Amino acid sequence: MKREECTEKIIDAMRQKNLTFEEIARKIGKHKVWVASALHGQASMSKEESEKVVAILGLDPECGRLLQECPYKGALSTTVPTDPLIYRLYEIMAIYGVPMKSIVHEMFGDGIMSAIDFEIDIRKKEDPKGDRVVIELNGKFLPYKKW
Amino acid sequence: MKREECTEKIIDAMRQKNLTFEEIARKIGKHKVWVASALHGQASMSKEESEKVVAILGLDPECGRLLQECPYKGALSTTVPTDPLIYRLYEIMAIYGVPMKSIVHEMFGDGIMSAIDFEIDIRKKEDPKGDRVVIELNGKFLPYKKW
Amino acid sequence: MKREECTEKIIDAMRQKNLTFEEIARKIGKHKVWVASALHGQASMSKEESEKVVAILGLDPECGRLLQECPYKGALSTTVPTDPLIYRLYEIMAIYGVPMKSIVHEMFGDGIMSAIDFEIDIRKKEDPKGDRVVIELNGKFLPYKKW
Amino acid sequence: MKREECTEKIIDAMRQKNLTFEEIARKIGKHKVWVASALHGQASMSKEESEKVVAILGLDPECGRLLQECPYKGALSTTVPTDPLIYRLYEIMAIYGVPMKSIVHEMFGDGIMSAIDFEIDIRKKEDPKGDRVVIELNGKFLPYKKW
Amino acid sequence: MKREECTEKIIDAMRQKNLTFEEIARKIGKHKVWVASALHGQASMSKEESEKVVAILGLDPECGRLLQECPYKGALSTTVPTDPLIYRLYEIMAIYGVPMKSIVHEMFGDGIMSAIDFEIDIRKKEDPKGDRVVIELNGKFLPYKKW
Amino acid sequence: MKREECTEKIIDAMRQKNLTFEEIARKIGKHKVWVASALHGQASMSKEESEKVVAILGLDPECGRLLQECPYKGALSTTVPTDPLIYRLYEIMAIYGVPMKSIVHEMFGDGIMSAIDFEIDIRKKEDPKGDRVVIELNGKFLPYKKW
Amino acid sequence: MKREECTEKIIDAMRQKNLTFEEIARKIGKHKVWVASALHGQASMSKEESEKVVAILGLDPECGRLLQECPYKGALSTTVPTDPLIYRLYEIMAIYGVPMKSIVHEMFGDGIMSAIDFEIDIRKKEDPKGDRVVIELNGKFLPYKKW
Amino acid sequence: MKREECTEKIIDAMRQKNLTFEEIARKIGKHKVWVASALHGQASMSKEESEKVVAILGLDPECGRLLQECPYKGALSTTVPTDPLIYRLYEIMAIYGVPMKSIVHEMFGDGIMSAIDFEIDIRKKEDPKGDRVVIELNGKFLPYKKW
Amino acid sequence: MKREECTEKIIDAMRQKNLTFEEIARKIGKHKVWVASALHGQASMSKEESEKVVAILGLDPECGRLLQECPYKGALSTTVPTDPLIYRLYEIMAIYGVPMKSIVHEMFGDGIMSAIDFEIDIRKKEDPKGDRVVIELNGKFLPYKKW
Amino acid sequence: MKREECTEKIIDAMRQKNLTFEEIARKIGKHKVWVASALHGQASMSKEESEKVVAILGLDPECGRLLQECPYKGALSTTVPTDPLIYRLYEIMAIYGVPMKSIVHEMFGDGIMSAIDFEIDIRKKEDPKGDRVVIELNGKFLPYKKW
Repeated sequence: MKREECTEKIIDAMRQKNLTFEEIARKIGKHKVWVASALHGQASMSKEESEKVVAILGLDPECGRLLQECPYKGALSTTVPTDPLIYRLYEIMAIYGVPMKSIVHEMFGDGIMSAIDFEIDIRKKEDPKGDRVVIELNGKFLPYKKW
Repeated sequence: MKREECTEKIIDAMRQKNLTFEEIARKIGKHKVWVASALHGQASMSKEESEKVVAILGLDPECGRLLQECPYKGALSTTVPTDPLIYRLYEIMAIYGVPMKSIVHEMFGDGIMSAIDFEIDIRKKEDPKGDRVVIELNGKFLPYKKW
Repeated sequence: MKREECTEKIIDAMRQKNLTFEEIARKIGKHKVWVASALHGQASMSKEESEKVVAILGLDPECGRLLQECPYKGALSTTVPTDPLIYRLYEIMAIYGVPMKSIVHEMFGDGIMSAIDFEIDIRKKEDPKGDRVVIELNGKFLPYKKW
Repeated sequence: MKREECTEKIIDAMRQKNLTFEEIARKIGKHKVWVASALHGQASMSKEESEKVVAILGLDPECGRLLQECPYKGALSTTVPTDPLIYRLYEIMAIYGVPMKSIVHEMFGDGIMSAIDFEIDIRKKEDPKGDRVVIELNGKFLPYKKW
Repeated sequence: MKREECTEKIIDAMRQKNLTFEEIARKIGKHKVWVASALHGQASMSKEESEKVVAILGLDPECGRLLQECPYKGALSTTVPTDPLIYRLYEIMAIYGVPMKSIVHEMFGDGIMSAIDFEIDIRKKEDPKGDRVVIELNGKFLPYKKW
Repeated sequence: MKREECTEKIIDAMRQKNLTFEEIARKIGKHKVWVASALHGQASMSKEESEKVVAILGLDPECGRLLQECPYKGALSTTVPTDPLIYRLYEIMAIYGVPMKSIVHEMFGDGIMSAIDFEIDIRKKEDPKGDRVVIELNGKFLPYKKW
Repeated sequence: MKREECTEKIIDAMRQKNLTFEEIARKIGKHKVWVASALHGQASMSKEESEKVVAILGLDPECGRLLQECPYKGALSTTVPTDPLIYRLYEIMAIYGVPMKSIVHEMFGDGIMSAIDFEIDIRKKEDPKGDRVVIELNGKFLPYKKW
Repeated sequence: MKREECTEKIIDAMRQKNLTFEEIARKIGKHKVWVASALHGQASMSKEESEKVVAILGLDPECGRLLQECPYKGALSTTVPTDPLIYRLYEIMAIYGVPMKSIVHEMFGDGIMSAIDFEIDIRKKEDPKGDRVVIELNGKFLPYKKW
Repeated sequence: MKREECTEKIIDAMRQKNLTFEEIARKIGKHKVWVASALHGQASMSKEESEKVVAILGLDPECGRLLQECPYKGALSTTVPTDPLIYRLYEIMAIYGVPMKSIVHEMFGDGIMSAIDFEIDIRKKEDPKGDRVVIELNGKFLPYKKW
Repeated sequence: MKREECTEKIIDAMRQKNLTFEEIARKIGKHKVWVASALHGQASMSKEESEKVVAILGLDPECGRLLQECPYKGALSTTVPTDPLIYRLYEIMAIYGVPMKSIVHEMFGDGIMSAIDFEIDIRKKEDPKGDRVVIELNGKFLPYKKW
């Protein structure tokens, strides 16, 4: 079985059982963004976590084993995403990428924000002029090694 | 004069005067990420703001008029950025884009986070295991209109 | 079930029942362009709207649930579309994009026309020299936020 | 002289003389979108029109002759535009292109909207919830010839 | 049923019945290039034409209805075609495109040759040094509208 | 000197002397499409032909020598051309390429139309409903060799 | 049946019968490189040749008819091949292409080496320091026609 | 000085002195294809060879030092070459690449033809039906190492 | 059977039998990186090696024969890999490729490191600040041949 | 001044002074691969290091300040490199990338080899059958964080 088939089965089961990622996350005790990543085939679960998912969604055991494997990551079918919600993240990188690079270097020196020792939080900030999406990217600063 | 030449002059002047975006931002009274964006040719300034920049950096007046124009935005020379710091933002989109889309739709319904009614903050979070870069993306939720 | 299979079932049912998007739109009480978008997997319907579609076209219920989900949007298989009707929209963007940008900025300042708080109307304008297609794009102006 | 250099001279002269496309259009007696297209190197002017532009902007005569030539059209440096205002037109094509194609065929049969026998109007529609940009694309319907 | 499956069925039936596009064209009373285009999914037929094709090739009725639909046009799987016969057309465009543009503008002014109000003829011109393929492209000149 | 600079000088001289490709072609005794190709850097001239061009346009002798060299052919800056007149040739290839391939093979067997032993003619066909552009592509049929 | 399925059946039959292209070529009386091309779907066979292949490999008759058709040529799934053996041919073109062009023009004038009236031979040249692959490309020189 | 400027100077000098690669090759005592490669910036010369070139063409000494450096190889400006002579090499790879791979593996086992321990010869084979270009590629077979 | 199906069967069998590449490598007596390459369809095995794999994993014999064939190599579905672990190798090439080229040329002269007469070792180097991955690439230096 | 101009000046000075990266590295007290990276604009130097470089190569002071800045990294002009030495690194990633991923995950779990906390060593291993290039990539293992 390929990971994509496993993902499709998970999404089908969530639709039929009317379950959200947030509900599954609460049952597993992990953050909803991370759980959505793992179920979409972008992160690997422990044996215990995957067994909980199998039980909650009524999946077959091979799907559970697949959830423990380190997947080939990257979930988009085009280099530039067409979906407007996801494209806005691309737009932010294309437009604010160089300015953000300048600021991070001013604050931290030469290095990067890790995308591995890293977490994402998404919050709703209520606002009378229209609620706001707040995405917090939090990654360890990794200074370039000289040798 | 093209906007790129104006940007190069700004960066040269900052190097010669040993000024940071943060210092310029403080003098203008705006956030450092936004100021870096405007000076890199990704946002437009008011007449007052641009005149302050011209004075601080000793630029010629045409450069000041250019800072007030609405630039052709997008500052990367390749579809997928090669710079590691900026690439990590691309990686986050490629890997966490679909999971984030799922979570935003669960929290807000069908729509997007605006990249226009939008702001970015970058903070340093000190940590004994290595300081962390925290990037906060804050955009208005725009629900899809039906008609 | 993937959204693409659901779309194919809808198109097959429309062909067999000899129904147009306009007829379905009239029964649902929405604009024909929006209904065509939703049925092609580019917009999400309410529970009531999707149930009407299921009834009109005789679809199975899972298809109805899929119509309520927020789809991964973007319906073309190539970056530059090959279909001549759709390509002309690409050509308009490639040729008149920069001039339109200049005019919008002259009229509204720095910002964009939203493609989310947005609607499309298509009308036929009769003309003895050949009828004309009139496409009206109507989106909220979103001014760039400074911060 | 290349057409791009001529365009740059025009834009520089407009900035120095503080002139808008709308003001130039009024003096020439043509629509502002078409004038912006011609000055950006996307359309060709008559001898009279180009001489008026040369006079208004104080250009050298070779620039005037260039304005009369049929330019190599297409003004973007990337296949998918990065500028957010122009990208939204790409997004509209990517998402609503197939639905619009369905509707045009339902209304007109097999054929296209011409992008040559074609005009664009841009209007501001005032709205208390935020003004709206209305772009009207108006092109002759061209039915496919059978032979 | 997707249009591609319908095309595959048509080609299979032609192979089994040992029929050429020219023979089918003669029975329908249309030009062989146009008939090949319609059967390859690049043009739409009338009800009568499609019913003749269904009868000649022994297709099922849904295929006949599909032949009447306006297809998503464009039949190549790569941006630059690899097949040598088709590539030569690409080469002609890449090398003689700009010279042809110059000549058409000298002869007709600013505008294009329509690819919609358009027809193609292919003839064999016998020649002792090797027969020649003569492809005649015949399209209405469409002058650019000014507005 | 690069061939591109030589081409730019030729076009500048033609503009200043108000000469067309057709007029130059008549003086050289060759077809206007071929002359436009040679002057645009897509074909090589004999010593005599290039000297006539140098005399007619008042070019410097190095330009004349360059006109005799075999140029690196291919005159477009993008894989898919953006100019509408040239794009229509691409569209014809994308849509009618496979049907034309079928017909050429039915008429000639396996092989191609040469783009080297090849010529192009462009004619105006007057028509009360709008004049027509007729482009005749005439190339030797080259059968595939078996070995 | 698509040509790709036919190719897969041929390769499967060769594997099961443990046959090489060279052995099949000897039975058909053609060169092994040409036979490999035809069986891989890159050339068309005569009725007699295809019947021999059907008999040797035990294929079904439709596969035999497909071997006689003029295939859509081009057998790679990426623009730049990833397979190292085939990539080296790409590297030779990328690096020695311009030098070879210069030498062919010095030797033959303006024109090309045909890839249609063309054959390939591959030989092993034994060498104590390591055997050598010798690929001989042999194509008719086609001079550019002037008109 | 960049290698490209050096190449342009070499080609200019060859044009002014009316020298061919073959004549230069004879004076240096190397094969004309290799010399063309080195002068086009695709190979590196010894001190002696470069000094001969400097003397023959009257170049300045820095150009001579550049001829001794290991250049960044690869001389085409597009992934797929547009020049017809060079494109035919691409076509040979695209069409005959997989068949050649099969034959080389049948003859030599798993491995490649080296493009480094490699040489090219180009010969003219006279033929009453039209002279033929014979390109001989000769590279060491490199078997894949197992470990 | 295609090689991709064979690879999928191998991976499924490894998952069901809970076997690692290292364990299989030990049983075959080859290095784990090479065995992973061969099982992923990137190298060819001897008859004995493939029979051991068939026995260990319980595969059907055709799969065994496929393991002996020279595969079409290259295992990524995109030109730039999206998986972060593999992307880092791309990043190393993009950033350190030119510097490494300079150093190899300083040490060895003009030539390359073979990727055919080549092996890879991967080791874990324990480190209190975090274990390190050490990848050793070891390829024969191939000097460019002059001729 | 742009970083590319600074790099060109450094390379020119090295050529004129006949200096290698290794010699400069010895004077600075850093590894030659890192020094080559910094001088090629792929890493940033301390004030002291850059001043030494300025002194050794006789550069102007602005170049020295540029060497201290965090450059926009990525030094190749094409997505897939054409230079054979660098291409081999791409080939290794394309072919051995997935196998290496499997082995790293077996040895370390889910995570990556850092390309930031990372160093490269290049050694010559003498061998009677031909010296070998040994490239050692040494990066910290970064385990994926769960949250």
